[in-house]
Amino acid sequence: MSASLDETTGLFDDDTRVERIDDGRLRAAISDRWNALGGSPNGGYLLAVCLQALRHELTLPDPLVASAHFLRPAIPGQADVHTDVARSGRRVATGEARLVQEGKERVRVVASFTDANAVVGRALELGTPPALPAPDKAIDPLAELALPGITIADRIEYRMDPAARGWHTGEPSGDPTHEFWMRFRDGHEADAWSLPLFVDAFSPAVLELGLGSFTVELTVHVRARPVAGWLACRVATQHLSGGFHEEDFEIWDEGGRLVAQSRQLGLLISDEEPS
Amino acid sequence: MSASLDETTGLFDDDTRVERIDDGRLRAAISDRWNALGGSPNGGYLLAVCLQALRHELTLPDPLVASAHFLRPAIPGQADVHTDVARSGRRVATGEARLVQEGKERVRVVASFTDANAVVGRALELGTPPALPAPDKAIDPLAELALPGITIADRIEYRMDPAARGWHTGEPSGDPTHEFWMRFRDGHEADAWSLPLFVDAFSPAVLELGLGSFTVELTVHVRARPVAGWLACRVATQHLSGGFHEEDFEIWDEGGRLVAQSRQLGLLISDEEPS
Repeated sequence: MSASLDETTGLFDDDTRVERIDDGRLRAAISDRWNALGGSPNGGYLLAVCLQALRHELTLPDPLVASAHFLRPAIPGQADVHTDVARSGRRVATGEARLVQEGKERVRVVASFTDANAVVGRALELGTPPALPAPDKAIDPLAELALPGITIADRIEYRMDPAARGWHTGEPSGDPTHEFWMRFRDGHEADAWSLPLFVDAFSPAVLELGLGSFTVELTVHVRARPVAGWLACRVATQHLSGGFHEEDFEIWDEGGRLVAQSRQLGLLISDEEPS
Repeated sequence: MSASLDETTGLFDDDTRVERIDDGRLRAAISDRWNALGGSPNGGYLLAVCLQALRHELTLPDPLVASAHFLRPAIPGQADVHTDVARSGRRVATGEARLVQEGKERVRVVASFTDANAVVGRALELGTPPALPAPDKAIDPLAELALPGITIADRIEYRMDPAARGWHTGEPSGDPTHEFWMRFRDGHEADAWSLPLFVDAFSPAVLELGLGSFTVELTVHVRARPVAGWLACRVATQHLSGGFHEEDFEIWDEGGRLVAQSRQLGLLISDEEPS
């Protein structure tokens, strides 16, 4: 466990802190400050809480890949996180976390950690970061919108090309793709532990088709620690069928490095249909 | 459980069959007929075995999304698969499977199933299938190669553009991307249960960089049941850093429909470095 675990550097650290109760059981306080569309705590936030629990249990220090299955919406308030360690290897350590509230499991996470300082091998980058205007030339897409209950919008700020159209301008584009900047509003810099929040912290791309979505599964790869600054993001859905869709997300730091990518499988929802 | 569970339609069905021992415990016989590069049973094959175990336990009939963490290489021979059901919903049911051999867990899978006949909502396809010559105008890239121990190459056949160059022609291209056809050699048609094998059944794209890889985590989305025929496949790695790389895989059926996509996180390996 690194010393930084107990340093308070931002609201997100406070709201993802877990306390160890006993072997394989930790306690979290799920905050209402990260509620997403629908009014429930954001899935990426819940995943980040689970990763903090695994940080107490795994022998390697840095999150590498995590898969979360979202079973039921979580609720603000106390949660128990039950963990178990699957394997402690030299390069990779893997464990599981189950977030339980009121006796019901809400999220199940399996995650592998590594030591990001033990870098070996070649680097190759065939992708390109989003082509965005500088943040001070971009606009806040939420500035004109009232989003009651979506408290995550009070925690994270967004910047988009002033020319971009979409649900935020009242003009769903039919094209489920966006590029934009993100960062914490409180000045806390994004780190490896908050990237799993950020990959799930924009509106679902399918909103551009007038559709809502519930995440069934989200996998995130944390590829590097971001440098300080804004996060350049790209989200896209390409395949919508059978009531499901994928959503791919990339995050690049201001140094032009890919720091995280994720893919989720979402269930298209309408008011009449519980999952 | 559908009647088809007990129909033998191909070697792959035989080799992924599981027997229920008691509540939450099933037995599998891991075959040596699906060994991959490195001489161990292929990861997608092991995932498919775990999905057959969950098929006995989950209330919905069709695999939808599965995440597998590969903890240790498996070995041919008997395996126990321990399952638990996380949630049985109306649209989605989720469970976990742990494949154990000789007292050691090899693979941990969390998967969600659905009812693929309960199709709702809109369809949209923004991607395009691989542009490949017809299979009878394509060539078997393995025809001239000796691949001792890689038994999966005896089970699956491949077809590529005759103009394509790469490790199969002794000319690693430096470009970790391929398009190709795949199908079972025994005439068994691919189905929803074998797609998790196929997304992992080609050589790692990083072979084009002269690198080997061990899969840490693989997530597959099964998006539709393929129609009979060849599978049109696309594999690509874009980001290689810190000793890790992602690999994305798409499978389209002969009807031009995306039937599966996957992403895996791989650990670059060299002979001196155990994971």
